Amino acid sequence: MKCALLFGGASYEHEISIVSAITVKGKLSRFELSYIFCDQDHTFYLIEASKMKATTFSRGEHRKMPQLFMTNGGFEQRGLFGSKKFDMPVINIIHGGDGEDGSIAAMLDFYSIPFIGPRKEASMLSFDKHYTKWMANSLGVKILPFEAITQTSRNDIKTAYPFIVKPARLGSSIGVSVVQDVSELEYALDVAFEFDTVLLIEPFISGVKEYNLAGFSARGEMTYSIVEEPQKAEFLDFEKKYLDFSRSSTVAEAPISQELVQQLKTAFKVIYSPLFEGAIIRCDFFVIDDEVYLNEVNPIPGSMANYLFEDFQGAVNKLLGSLPTKKEIRIQYDYIHSISSAKGK
Amino acid sequence: MKCALLFGGASYEHEISIVSAITVKGKLSRFELSYIFCDQDHTFYLIEASKMKATTFSRGEHRKMPQLFMTNGGFEQRGLFGSKKFDMPVINIIHGGDGEDGSIAAMLDFYSIPFIGPRKEASMLSFDKHYTKWMANSLGVKILPFEAITQTSRNDIKTAYPFIVKPARLGSSIGVSVVQDVSELEYALDVAFEFDTVLLIEPFISGVKEYNLAGFSARGEMTYSIVEEPQKAEFLDFEKKYLDFSRSSTVAEAPISQELVQQLKTAFKVIYSPLFEGAIIRCDFFVIDDEVYLNEVNPIPGSMANYLFEDFQGAVNKLLGSLPTKKEIRIQYDYIHSISSAKGK
Repeated sequence: MKCALLFGGASYEHEISIVSAITVKGKLSRFELSYIFCDQDHTFYLIEASKMKATTFSRGEHRKMPQLFMTNGGFEQRGLFGSKKFDMPVINIIHGGDGEDGSIAAMLDFYSIPFIGPRKEASMLSFDKHYTKWMANSLGVKILPFEAITQTSRNDIKTAYPFIVKPARLGSSIGVSVVQDVSELEYALDVAFEFDTVLLIEPFISGVKEYNLAGFSARGEMTYSIVEEPQKAEFLDFEKKYLDFSRSSTVAEAPISQELVQQLKTAFKVIYSPLFEGAIIRCDFFVIDDEVYLNEVNPIPGSMANYLFEDFQGAVNKLLGSLPTKKEIRIQYDYIHSISSAKGK
Repeated sequence: MKCALLFGGASYEHEISIVSAITVKGKLSRFELSYIFCDQDHTFYLIEASKMKATTFSRGEHRKMPQLFMTNGGFEQRGLFGSKKFDMPVINIIHGGDGEDGSIAAMLDFYSIPFIGPRKEASMLSFDKHYTKWMANSLGVKILPFEAITQTSRNDIKTAYPFIVKPARLGSSIGVSVVQDVSELEYALDVAFEFDTVLLIEPFISGVKEYNLAGFSARGEMTYSIVEEPQKAEFLDFEKKYLDFSRSSTVAEAPISQELVQQLKTAFKVIYSPLFEGAIIRCDFFVIDDEVYLNEVNPIPGSMANYLFEDFQGAVNKLLGSLPTKKEIRIQYDYIHSISSAKGK
């Protein structure tokens, strides 16, 4: 099966995306892969398999490799004697801006390039955590209470300490702090406002149980990963999350009841379908007093959450065989024809 | 002032966009304009000014004109002896799919091409009328009660007759019906479901007052058009709206109180700022018992609502001088450098 890994992007998660792509490369050994790097200036490069290591990019060596252009039906490599088309499906592993904000999805869709990843609408609704809360609410999935604040409302926080401060539109824990009391507040807000103009404030509940579940829908049926109880820490800071993006060994299943697994899958499906069709997503849940709460949706999870699937290659293969297609619109110019003939032209 | 009109698109409103662009061309006589047509197969063509008439497109004559490619910094025309860049700002006049759903906005933004039009997030939130209701609600702007239905819930409509049925994601009255009683229901739903999988049901209030207002923000200050009381009809059907898109004579101001004008402007600003920055939008309001209700947001109104502005060229010029720019992200590869040096590589 041919497919192309698309990674990089102009995003605070650019380096994480490189790590993620290298990890996914190692997990898709049965695939015939191409590697397409999106540089921070939005130039695309075709990367040789042997050059798929972090230092290729940090040293700028990729800039000597062939440029690619996104065109109808696939990426194109132009040469003096014609051009070569890369018309295989793409796996979008650009985390954060570009990849998860709907830009890349809109472009792949516009150019009819089939891809694994959230479509533009799903991206925009999950990229901004504020909208994710909105969406979960309207779908009847429980969420923790939250406040959204801006610079002008930074002094009006009503949530009781301790609480979590996070930029509304970033993943990977960038700019996130746990604020224990007022002495830590200003610094935490300043850090978070470096990355976004809107912040979310959520109560920090210590000892809350966390469970992650990944999955996707293909041929009308859901496939779920195992449920993981993620490594406990006050929260994962950027450096720990960074290592997290290179995870490749299958994790142990969380020791929880079948009822709870079922509850998590039910909440997952409500969130997933139909909005996220075409993507492998990871939902991070809290469980408080046996009730399931959505914490976050990761529409492009680190290293595609490969470590949660017993048969990751089988999962990717299944999804590739069932990617959403756009409804085609045929324009017949009926109105212009009728007006022109009425005018006798 | 140089700028390019971008029109067409793979959308049910393709023909309307052509009419709109031709009208705007006539209204921007002081500008040095280029014309970029997006064909239904997503190929871009450079159209000569003299060929800017509807039959050029209905007869397929545009396919003999030079192709353009969207690249970093502007559209590009490629030739045997190098390429020519069109690096002027773009006015996005693609109505409906592609133009108003966020695709074109995402692409222009990705390639750092300055443009007049809604950004991708604003597009997505206004393209789906369901999200528009959500947004207005959360901003404290009143809306009429509504239901969202799908094929599986088509028999569960609770709204009392008469009501309006509209596809959630189309403009220009396509697929919209007023349903007087149950005998008209099935047909109206079938028609609307031809265009979308989600429909909105809203009460039809006869004799309600309607007012349209356009505007934009530039250099931190709002510019408003005059308020129009649109032509009354049960509702504008597609053919009437189609003609509506070629409007070019300034309309008469609605004979309403200064208080009401102020109320409409206040509601407009709440909706507009900051989400729609960069766009000239038109908000269509209902007024019931002296209360203002948002009916619809048109983020790319027909012929740019030129007929509502006393000085349309001045308005476009002012907005072009104050287009939003993206925050630049500089990637320094700090993490990869630190990991590489820790490994001694």
